[in-house]
Amino acid sequence: MAGISQVSSNKCFGGFQKVFSHESEQLKCKMNFAVYLPPKAEDANVKLPVIYWLSGLTCNEQNFIQKAGGQKLAANHQFIIVCPDTSPRGCGIEGEEDSWDFGTGAGFYVDAIEEKWKTNYRMFSYITKELPQLISANFPADPNLMSIMGHSMGGHGALICALKNPGLYKSVSAFAPICNPVNCPWGEKAFSGYLGADKNLWKEWDATCLVANYQGAPLEIFVDQGEEDQFLKDGQLLPDNLVESCAKAGMPIILRKQAGYDHSYYFIATYLEDHFNHHAKFLQ
Amino acid sequence: MAGISQVSSNKCFGGFQKVFSHESEQLKCKMNFAVYLPPKAEDANVKLPVIYWLSGLTCNEQNFIQKAGGQKLAANHQFIIVCPDTSPRGCGIEGEEDSWDFGTGAGFYVDAIEEKWKTNYRMFSYITKELPQLISANFPADPNLMSIMGHSMGGHGALICALKNPGLYKSVSAFAPICNPVNCPWGEKAFSGYLGADKNLWKEWDATCLVANYQGAPLEIFVDQGEEDQFLKDGQLLPDNLVESCAKAGMPIILRKQAGYDHSYYFIATYLEDHFNHHAKFLQ
Repeated sequence: MAGISQVSSNKCFGGFQKVFSHESEQLKCKMNFAVYLPPKAEDANVKLPVIYWLSGLTCNEQNFIQKAGGQKLAANHQFIIVCPDTSPRGCGIEGEEDSWDFGTGAGFYVDAIEEKWKTNYRMFSYITKELPQLISANFPADPNLMSIMGHSMGGHGALICALKNPGLYKSVSAFAPICNPVNCPWGEKAFSGYLGADKNLWKEWDATCLVANYQGAPLEIFVDQGEEDQFLKDGQLLPDNLVESCAKAGMPIILRKQAGYDHSYYFIATYLEDHFNHHAKFLQ
Repeated sequence: MAGISQVSSNKCFGGFQKVFSHESEQLKCKMNFAVYLPPKAEDANVKLPVIYWLSGLTCNEQNFIQKAGGQKLAANHQFIIVCPDTSPRGCGIEGEEDSWDFGTGAGFYVDAIEEKWKTNYRMFSYITKELPQLISANFPADPNLMSIMGHSMGGHGALICALKNPGLYKSVSAFAPICNPVNCPWGEKAFSGYLGADKNLWKEWDATCLVANYQGAPLEIFVDQGEEDQFLKDGQLLPDNLVESCAKAGMPIILRKQAGYDHSYYFIATYLEDHFNHHAKFLQ
């Protein structure tokens, strides 16, 4: 294994759920990530599609692999699933542990430009550049067959990774994503912290804004949103803004509002199969 | 709700994963338990089968509902799933928090007779009597269609609940159960603590011993055991002793040894569908 060391390995649905650690060049700290290798990954001659899962606020590489039930679906589809952490850890930046929605566990998948954060908080480059190289170097992954999905903050992360890199990901989907961070409290706190006071710069990291100027490979956004999600009610997620922006830009989007469901992994587990099927359409 | 109060409720696979608390008569303390109600539970005219899941050492009512992926299977089969805690909590007994394998989180599903523990540590009567009455009183459960399953200490718990109550449960299954506690370190510690020094009394709470004298409704035991399970290698589980006892007694048992699998919920999630299918054969 080049540059990574194994933390754990558990056989699961005929493949292996593994966790690795490595020293990240982008983030200048030690990071954990999880990889599910489906049964076919044991075949030395195959290259498999890879789906990246980006988790939400306060999460790490464990939440999805323990709670979502994704391994069965990944085994059926023969997809590799990669679950990174949600921020750098233990960088010694003053205040990094002060909030649950900023700093540790809350990297927002941007590359920070504010002096205090810009050395470590480069989750966008980590997810879109460093990690795919590491995965290709160590696992039977087809670098031309990548998709990305996520939840909440990570749903937004998946959207901006796809929207800012046309063609890099074959497909994108999200559960209860923060859709328009420049207009919600979580986003305002994170973007002012990581990006500074100039709100024009924020728009380069906002999915609803990025849709307006998207050019390149066709992208079809697939989103599930629970109607009983407290963060939806609190105005943190704003999915209708994303749909409106897509409509103006002519970008296809499917937004399913699911009656009775909340923001939890019980919601994610329920509809994850549909997301895998969505990605499978584009990963063959 | 008679005698119970709702702690949480999350929609999941069209039904609801709920957690309740109540004051237990048997255990003389406040207890949590989880209930998955499948979609059909909303129909006022149905009575649904119930499967009890008993968790292992250190667990509580959360482990199975977060990690096993059982809700999808329960929704498909229209089964209610009940997940109790693994011991009384906060009883103020000196030493109850000292060990991870005795006291809190380690009730072993027996009724204690030792003076110090006998007032609270009555998990057997709690699981087989108090909890089914509570479930029948509050949910659309058919008291004549109950099955039981569990993991490790809870796998043994499921076995003894079934073996000591012929006909009460239509079927029993287990993942990596402690099969012969009178002959393993975990069992020796727990039984000497809860039951005292007389090893003849221990045999009344040991699945491998109980099989020898079982009479009554036919029972077919279904067990999955990972071959890379560290606790198997450590001699804590002893499944071959159970199989030998079943062979002598003429009790049918299926023991599947699964290559490469360990003791974790990744193993449980992988084979849980087969256990649901096993129970479904007896719960129609």
